Amino acid sequence: MDYSGYLYLSEFKVRDYECDLQGVVNNANYQHFLEHARHEFLVSKGISFQELHEQGLDLIVTNIEIDYKFPLKSRDSFIVTVNVERKGYIRIIFLQEIYRVPDNKLIIKAKVTTAAARNGKPVYPAELLKQLGLE
Amino acid sequence: MDYSGYLYLSEFKVRDYECDLQGVVNNANYQHFLEHARHEFLVSKGISFQELHEQGLDLIVTNIEIDYKFPLKSRDSFIVTVNVERKGYIRIIFLQEIYRVPDNKLIIKAKVTTAAARNGKPVYPAELLKQLGLE
Amino acid sequence: MDYSGYLYLSEFKVRDYECDLQGVVNNANYQHFLEHARHEFLVSKGISFQELHEQGLDLIVTNIEIDYKFPLKSRDSFIVTVNVERKGYIRIIFLQEIYRVPDNKLIIKAKVTTAAARNGKPVYPAELLKQLGLE
Amino acid sequence: MDYSGYLYLSEFKVRDYECDLQGVVNNANYQHFLEHARHEFLVSKGISFQELHEQGLDLIVTNIEIDYKFPLKSRDSFIVTVNVERKGYIRIIFLQEIYRVPDNKLIIKAKVTTAAARNGKPVYPAELLKQLGLE
Repeated sequence: MDYSGYLYLSEFKVRDYECDLQGVVNNANYQHFLEHARHEFLVSKGISFQELHEQGLDLIVTNIEIDYKFPLKSRDSFIVTVNVERKGYIRIIFLQEIYRVPDNKLIIKAKVTTAAARNGKPVYPAELLKQLGLE
Repeated sequence: MDYSGYLYLSEFKVRDYECDLQGVVNNANYQHFLEHARHEFLVSKGISFQELHEQGLDLIVTNIEIDYKFPLKSRDSFIVTVNVERKGYIRIIFLQEIYRVPDNKLIIKAKVTTAAARNGKPVYPAELLKQLGLE
Repeated sequence: MDYSGYLYLSEFKVRDYECDLQGVVNNANYQHFLEHARHEFLVSKGISFQELHEQGLDLIVTNIEIDYKFPLKSRDSFIVTVNVERKGYIRIIFLQEIYRVPDNKLIIKAKVTTAAARNGKPVYPAELLKQLGLE
Repeated sequence: MDYSGYLYLSEFKVRDYECDLQGVVNNANYQHFLEHARHEFLVSKGISFQELHEQGLDLIVTNIEIDYKFPLKSRDSFIVTVNVERKGYIRIIFLQEIYRVPDNKLIIKAKVTTAAARNGKPVYPAELLKQLGLE
């Protein structure tokens, strides 16, 4: 498979404690994987999520849509992809997919809408958009 | 607020370990709350999620859409609502909201689409639909 | 069973997502239950864990010992007990047990040693000891 | 630092969702890391935790002791070590440490006592002991 259309890729392996009674990864954990890949992507652009927070700026998830295509099982390896686009004045949208490796089976597709907020109030994230090449 | 339009209500209180670096409940944990309320609702209808699984029948989440309106903080009390409707032949949709109490502030709105599967294959969940009054 | 020898009791019910591949509550989750009961106990004494942290004072776990006697399963109800004692100058020890209800089966016994720290440095927690009646 | 005295090493990086209100990794998550490293170690010896469970054999944690020396923070890299010894007829003890890298600061020391059980009853794990070189 050609992963060149993605801005960022993060590799993981399922840990047993992430699986539930049904013997597969619990649905909520995919949000953790998506979040971690986004934060890794931001770090790769010189943006630390924790530092932003300490400066009073948070990138807040306002909406998430996830299509669950196929479950991951114990010890599966997988790749989380990250693409990013801007929507309107203050929204940044992350388009993410999860593929099992090495067979590249599509596991989930997700669209994560975020908005920048300073001390809880929406702000225009000028610096952030610049670092993400989204001005 | 009038909660009489909901089929089921489940009450929770935020536990500190559910909060993250940003000082609010981590986004993934809302899926846990939504899932727990659905399972409680099913139990109230005489349906055990674990027993279903042991019989080879799983109610699988195929899509989730969540609007995050306002964050929950440490020790907030909240109510998770459950409504349910049928879509097509095999899909069961859960419409869920989370309200902080006692001020009834809307925290999230979610639409969770599920499909019944026996040993991984889609099936018509006749018994389940009957127990849910969705025939 | 007589719970009158305990300073504080907190009631829980197992949520399905807390169970793992083995069909029982994952070991790490018991630490969550123990922590939540301790924080509830502190709140009952007028002490907020989050407020303490915002004031720069943390009650840090320095050692934990847990005997796992019997596992909890999906939907089990249980009680987490809290007793507390002082050790030396700065340590506060929490003695905690978990009992399944209503049959009072002992699930785990735990000893949690904590120390107060201000900005990472050990301090004598005068106010805290007073609020806990441990002066 | 010389890691040659350890049977197995597993490398991790802290993910933001593993941190809590205090800005450090939540205590319960260290148990997840220890567990994952043990399971990886078992796999390296040809032992699958999930397969064992499906055959009715579980390696159950009966006691855990953890010394928390220093907290991990967001994005810290760390190594979890595994050593193993036998105790009596049926117990297998895992001695584990966590070191931050690259500065090799000791984060925690843990002793995890396990016992083999078949369908909930203690058994002599002949095959397992052989695979672990503990006969």
